[in-house]
Amino acid sequence: MVRALIFDVFGTLVDWRSGVARESEAFCNARGLAIDGLAFADSWRAKYQPAMEAVRGGGRGYVALDLLHRENLDATLLEFGLEGSIDAAAREVLNRAWEKLPPWPDCVAGLNALKPDYVIAPCSNGSIALMTWLAKYAGLPWDAILGAEIARAYKPQPAVYLASAAALGLAPNEVMMVAAHNSDLAAARAVGLKTAFVPRPSEHGAGQTSDLAPDADWDVIAADMVDLARRMRS
Amino acid sequence: MVRALIFDVFGTLVDWRSGVARESEAFCNARGLAIDGLAFADSWRAKYQPAMEAVRGGGRGYVALDLLHRENLDATLLEFGLEGSIDAAAREVLNRAWEKLPPWPDCVAGLNALKPDYVIAPCSNGSIALMTWLAKYAGLPWDAILGAEIARAYKPQPAVYLASAAALGLAPNEVMMVAAHNSDLAAARAVGLKTAFVPRPSEHGAGQTSDLAPDADWDVIAADMVDLARRMRS
Repeated sequence: MVRALIFDVFGTLVDWRSGVARESEAFCNARGLAIDGLAFADSWRAKYQPAMEAVRGGGRGYVALDLLHRENLDATLLEFGLEGSIDAAAREVLNRAWEKLPPWPDCVAGLNALKPDYVIAPCSNGSIALMTWLAKYAGLPWDAILGAEIARAYKPQPAVYLASAAALGLAPNEVMMVAAHNSDLAAARAVGLKTAFVPRPSEHGAGQTSDLAPDADWDVIAADMVDLARRMRS
Repeated sequence: MVRALIFDVFGTLVDWRSGVARESEAFCNARGLAIDGLAFADSWRAKYQPAMEAVRGGGRGYVALDLLHRENLDATLLEFGLEGSIDAAAREVLNRAWEKLPPWPDCVAGLNALKPDYVIAPCSNGSIALMTWLAKYAGLPWDAILGAEIARAYKPQPAVYLASAAALGLAPNEVMMVAAHNSDLAAARAVGLKTAFVPRPSEHGAGQTSDLAPDADWDVIAADMVDLARRMRS
């Protein structure tokens, strides 16, 4: 019945926090600036949902996440007192930290195990460009790049899930959304997709309190992506 | 300088004529109907450019190529006197012949050789769905699916090439269009893309008269996709 699996990416497949921390620290260190990379990553990411909310609410037309990340970087540099130290061209380079995120250890093997039997694609709020370059960096073997830019909307808006299914010529119930975030799955289920939960209890670091466990009877609950592939075969 | 290669698909990477002929013959034979598969494929394909022209001219809004193929199938069945023999549900199945086309023998090896160094993606008039399922069938290892549906326009309209480059966050001259059709390359070059020609002298069968050789000084002229990969490395 399920013919395609579509995936949340930030947090579910890649460790954005460690990756952005590492890239930001290396970037600043090369310029003689010292920062707490994890604090920088958390601050940058904290502006993610509010920035998308302006688009979701209709106050702003769709713009790609790369631009929202770039604007949020300006605000983060200001918070860290670095606004005078990094010029616009350098900020463009630092903004590409989001294209250089490490996959969780099980991801590449799990996706490769799923790929012979299913179309696999990201259904992320990241743009086609961001998802393509990130996949190139992290070795994510996508069949297509779906998600926000196809729909010109941001999850959890229904259009993102529905446009991703439609772009494959599939009905919603032929597509399974895979995420480490219960709210993402709830939105996907509400428009008819199948759902799979994979916990990522250290996405936000050791003190994480959210999404430690499934909060509904998702169609599949797996320990990681290799386990998901095993469950989808059986 | 070039960071992505984008490819024409029908004719350049896959042998649509043999593939559609084989699928159509098998489909009809299974129903006790005899057809000349190559004549059927040629007739079906002959309606391709006129159908897109209605969209290019603005008389019809963008619809995916799958729908144009489906409408053209109706007209082709009528020409072959089969309009009463194949119902609507069966026509949907036959329409998927375009997802089951054999790659030319050099394509998969050539694309795999290019993939470590470049983003590779189709820039076809086929839809995201058609390109994704065809890639799954033929083993084309795309990084992303670009082309007509991203732009909601049909080649050789400039928007298709420009939207494909923009979707990767690249300038036109960072992207190379690869095709077996001189007109496709001329349109890509006109909006700033780099160009590579690969001849496919039997796309239309033994009597082919078009596109037997490059008709301009394209940036790269290669014998096949493996040769293209070799030239892009040197």
